[in-house]
Amino acid sequence: MASEYTIHLATREDVPIILSLIHELAAYENASSSVIATEESLAQTLSFAPSPNDPPSLPTQSLGYAKTLLLTTPEGEVAGMALYFHNYSTWRAAPGIYLEDLFVQPKYRKRGYGKALIRELAKEVVRINGGRLEWSCLNWNKPSLEFYEALGARRMTEWVGLRVDGDALSALAENKEESK
Amino acid sequence: MASEYTIHLATREDVPIILSLIHELAAYENASSSVIATEESLAQTLSFAPSPNDPPSLPTQSLGYAKTLLLTTPEGEVAGMALYFHNYSTWRAAPGIYLEDLFVQPKYRKRGYGKALIRELAKEVVRINGGRLEWSCLNWNKPSLEFYEALGARRMTEWVGLRVDGDALSALAENKEESK
Repeated sequence: MASEYTIHLATREDVPIILSLIHELAAYENASSSVIATEESLAQTLSFAPSPNDPPSLPTQSLGYAKTLLLTTPEGEVAGMALYFHNYSTWRAAPGIYLEDLFVQPKYRKRGYGKALIRELAKEVVRINGGRLEWSCLNWNKPSLEFYEALGARRMTEWVGLRVDGDALSALAENKEESK
Repeated sequence: MASEYTIHLATREDVPIILSLIHELAAYENASSSVIATEESLAQTLSFAPSPNDPPSLPTQSLGYAKTLLLTTPEGEVAGMALYFHNYSTWRAAPGIYLEDLFVQPKYRKRGYGKALIRELAKEVVRINGGRLEWSCLNWNKPSLEFYEALGARRMTEWVGLRVDGDALSALAENKEESK
C-alpha cells in the first residue's frame, strides 16, 4: 500500500523514455529486431498531454493515433507504461479503450504497478462514457491470463483475430488477386 | 464485373441509414436487444466526411471515435457498410485500421461488395502509412474465415482477447477488489 507512485499522460518530452520502454519490452519478448519505431515516428503518431516545455511551434503536428500513460515510482523512476487507443462498440455507439501494450520494468514488478495502470484506463473508459476496456494476451501465457482475470477481465475465446499486413496488404490494396 | 457501385465515407446525413444497417446486422446476429445506439449517439461518437448539407452550426461536436464507409449499388441503394477505427502498432509506431463491423445486406451478397469494402480499408491503411488491417471473427464461422483468408488475412490464433465491461469495469475503475 501507500507506495506513492504517480501516473501521467505522456507529454512530447516523454518520447525518449517511451522509446526506451518499447525497446525494453521488445527485448523482454525477444523481438528487438521488430522495433522500427523512432523518436520521430512516435512524436508524429502519438497524442500527448500539453506541456509547458513544448516548443512554441511544434515541428510537426502529431496525428494522435494513440496515447501513453507513464507510471513514476516514489523514487522518481519511470517504471512502466500503458500505450492505448480508443476503440468503438457499434451496438453501444460508444467508445472504449484498447490497451495495446502494458509494460512494467522487471525490477519494479510485484508492486501493483501493472494493475494501477490498467485501473487508470478503466477510469478513463468510465470518464468518456465508454463501455469496454480490452486487450489481447498470448493464449499460453497462463500467469498473465490469471492476473487479468483476477482484475475482472474475461477471455473472448469465441473470437479469433484476423490480420492483413505486408505483401498481402499491398496486394489487397492494389486490387491484385493473391494466388491462393 | 463492372458493377458500378460506389463507396463513400459517411456524412452526418447518413446517420439514419447507418443506424438502420446496425439494426439489420444485429437482427442477422440475433442480437437486436443489444443495440442501444441511437441517431444521436452515433452522431456524437462517429467521425464524418463534411457535407454541403451539414447544418451551418452543428448541434454537437462529434467526438469522432470511428468512421463508416457506405457502399451504394448501381441502382442507388445503400447495400452495406464497414465501420472502423484506427489502431496502433507500437513496434512500428504506426497506425492501422481495425474493422469493427462489416455488413452487406443479404439480398446484395455474392456481388463482391464485402471484398470491395475491405479493399477500400486496405487502401486507406496504405494511404496513412499504416501497417495492418485487422478485425475479428467468430472462430466457428468457417465460411467467413475462408473468405477472409482468401483476401490474404491470417488468423492470430496465438492471441486471446480480454474484456472488462459492465460491473467488472465499474469495480476496477472504483478501485474495489472483486470477490474472486
